[in-house]
Amino acid sequence: MNSTTSTQRTASPLLLQALQERFGAQVSTALAVREQHGRDEGSIQAPPPDAVVFAESAKDVADAVRLANEHNTPVIAYGAGSSLEGHLLAVQGGISIDVSRMNKIIAIDADDLTVTVEPGITRKQLNEALKHQGLFFPIDPGADASVGGMTATRASGTNAVRYGTLRENVLALEVVLASGETIHTGTRAKKSAAGYDLTRLFVGSEGTLGIFTQITLKLYPLPEAVSAAICSFPSIEQAVRTVITTIQLGVPIARVELLDGPTVGLVNQYSKLTLREEPMLLMEFHGSPASVKEQAETVQEIAAEYEGQAFEWAHTPEERTRLWTARHNAYFAGVQSRPGCRVITTDTCVPISRLADCLLASVAEAQASGITYFLVGHVGDGNFHFGYLINPDDEDERQRGEALSLALVSRAIEMGGTCTGEHGIGIHKMDYLVQETGDGAVAVMRSIKQALDPKNILNPGKIFAQ
Amino acid sequence: MNSTTSTQRTASPLLLQALQERFGAQVSTALAVREQHGRDEGSIQAPPPDAVVFAESAKDVADAVRLANEHNTPVIAYGAGSSLEGHLLAVQGGISIDVSRMNKIIAIDADDLTVTVEPGITRKQLNEALKHQGLFFPIDPGADASVGGMTATRASGTNAVRYGTLRENVLALEVVLASGETIHTGTRAKKSAAGYDLTRLFVGSEGTLGIFTQITLKLYPLPEAVSAAICSFPSIEQAVRTVITTIQLGVPIARVELLDGPTVGLVNQYSKLTLREEPMLLMEFHGSPASVKEQAETVQEIAAEYEGQAFEWAHTPEERTRLWTARHNAYFAGVQSRPGCRVITTDTCVPISRLADCLLASVAEAQASGITYFLVGHVGDGNFHFGYLINPDDEDERQRGEALSLALVSRAIEMGGTCTGEHGIGIHKMDYLVQETGDGAVAVMRSIKQALDPKNILNPGKIFAQ
Repeated sequence: MNSTTSTQRTASPLLLQALQERFGAQVSTALAVREQHGRDEGSIQAPPPDAVVFAESAKDVADAVRLANEHNTPVIAYGAGSSLEGHLLAVQGGISIDVSRMNKIIAIDADDLTVTVEPGITRKQLNEALKHQGLFFPIDPGADASVGGMTATRASGTNAVRYGTLRENVLALEVVLASGETIHTGTRAKKSAAGYDLTRLFVGSEGTLGIFTQITLKLYPLPEAVSAAICSFPSIEQAVRTVITTIQLGVPIARVELLDGPTVGLVNQYSKLTLREEPMLLMEFHGSPASVKEQAETVQEIAAEYEGQAFEWAHTPEERTRLWTARHNAYFAGVQSRPGCRVITTDTCVPISRLADCLLASVAEAQASGITYFLVGHVGDGNFHFGYLINPDDEDERQRGEALSLALVSRAIEMGGTCTGEHGIGIHKMDYLVQETGDGAVAVMRSIKQALDPKNILNPGKIFAQ
Repeated sequence: MNSTTSTQRTASPLLLQALQERFGAQVSTALAVREQHGRDEGSIQAPPPDAVVFAESAKDVADAVRLANEHNTPVIAYGAGSSLEGHLLAVQGGISIDVSRMNKIIAIDADDLTVTVEPGITRKQLNEALKHQGLFFPIDPGADASVGGMTATRASGTNAVRYGTLRENVLALEVVLASGETIHTGTRAKKSAAGYDLTRLFVGSEGTLGIFTQITLKLYPLPEAVSAAICSFPSIEQAVRTVITTIQLGVPIARVELLDGPTVGLVNQYSKLTLREEPMLLMEFHGSPASVKEQAETVQEIAAEYEGQAFEWAHTPEERTRLWTARHNAYFAGVQSRPGCRVITTDTCVPISRLADCLLASVAEAQASGITYFLVGHVGDGNFHFGYLINPDDEDERQRGEALSLALVSRAIEMGGTCTGEHGIGIHKMDYLVQETGDGAVAVMRSIKQALDPKNILNPGKIFAQ
């Protein structure tokens, strides 16, 4: 699917000239650079942006947006390029603003467990800088995404079951609006009742309301004790029932991830491992030594009731890294198992009591379809991902993959869940958003967009296709 | 101060007639009823609303709002009347919509730890209904506020240090917009990246963007073990340093409240207690028996370093209730200590590392001023309240009270904090909001308000005085 719309607003020669004058070597119109900024990790393709500005400061961002606004031309913020739903695609033409050079840490306030960063810093860069202070930023979506991109998509990932998502972990923002004006939202205080929660409005707005130039995040002390384990189960259902019981008992588990048997097989191949090719939970416990021990014992008892076996514990950082690398490589293991394929990724999230029903029905459907897939999940949150591996040149296969995705989304919504737990709407899930929330709520989103970006220059064609 | 504005929009006889026809005995124009709905617990006064509609269903709310919109007349939602910043005052005239009869529980989903309620239910009513299922809704602002009002002000209170505020605990909303149209935001899934976070936008919008008709909340299992304690300190500074260290060490304390010595004296008088009239921390620990024991030991060690003494533990529910009643009565104990007074309540919240500096400077200022005050605080969040007790007929005293409040707010903002941790802006803190966030962010709030409520009928004159 090539998703270009009829409202092309290609950057004019006048705008390109103005950008050249303002940014000199920081702007590029080279095809290779533009193409690199015109794709993400998802399955949708579009022509590249007309130019890329490499911003090095908040003023660079503000000036680039102001120029684009004067010329009625789209601007799309670019961090690490790891989004999955077509967020970065220049579907109406325009300018990509690459913020990856803006990767400074402005301030670590260790005593308050907060940090203020520029948007281009990646989560690994941030954690590298924090670890010597005994602190960490827990949100881990797998990819080494930029903090700006994670904030824009309301990302979460493996640690969210305990530490929350970007929604819960952003305290304050500096944002360039469509006019080029800069505003500040939030403070470093832990809570606030000061007017509309603009911080939360911008978190997850996918670049359509503003571009972040500073982000203040919550941090956490590195846990005194960490223990990780894997455990195999005779069936997906038994693995999932273990998770449901764990969550319902209030065990503060830090991570609990599911891989189905065939996906473990793909990981074994990709990462040269010999894990049992059965449904598997990967778990991690954080806390004081006593608390970690207590949590681990509780979960082992629960797992035993569901015939969990072959518990393998990882107590050292090296052992843990090996286990988690397997989980983090699941996506690439899946993709590489079918060379040349593209992935249609699902991202449904349901109330925990419906997780088994939703997952099992969707597995049955995927198996019946004959489409190759992998299956991983942040199951402690009720969130899981099918990756349907399709041949991009086979329209029939794409349609069958999309039909599986739609059936899953419809099931999740019917169960009180959401079409996207963490990847965002982008281009790919716009119809799902309407299905989930109704026309009324989408109309409210549109009217907010129109009020804040009347020329519709900020990442147009996303979320609700304005 | 009488805060009426020049843009009076009194309900017309035509509107009152239309309301009578639609609502019959559910609408009242009796002065006593209007006066009861025209005041809150704060220090500002205004003439009462022109009529009160007692809504019994979502349709009642929608119809009342639609009629008011047709007649360009303000509507103000009313829950329990416990707000503190003039939120309920009919400063431009109009209709009060009392939702207290809408106090049903729509659904308890114990397996998912969620509940959906009507807005008029109070937190005590809710917890009474939940306790037989081993669940509770932890947010406790002291007053027996309605869940709708708590959602509208982004309330928090004593348990927020562990369980978060309404910001973190609302999953989904049904909202009547200014047009009378109803929308749904959010789902029962634990997380979502589906478009703009409208739920968070409405939480804390103080009735200016819509009126809630259903609210879906997170619940928590009643903790397996609970232990409470009080501890006295030679100085406020030592008490606060104990709190700072506790938070910085990541102890998951459920409650940690401060009363200064004179306030303990007021509570003793009011509640017939004999607590040591010294700065005091009230603490509560939730978790497994082992975890509670570990937390309590850690905090006792920390307190000992700061000369904390006279630890008194409460292990039974009755003993705990006695301790916490003392804390909850602090506000009334303060107010009643000076008959006929009104209270100017502060609500600053600062990053935890600045708590001691902010608090001590403000205590010194208050003592120097000669204004009577009480001092309580949700210090684990960096949030505390002075109550300056002023004679409402003494303009000089009011101005001196307001000067203390302004000095405190300025100090908190300078320290990276907020003017309001949990009470909201209402009428009283509108200038502070601009001081805290700047004109740019307030302009964004205004433009959202204008987009969603073009006739400005929803609780006008609040937050930014539109």
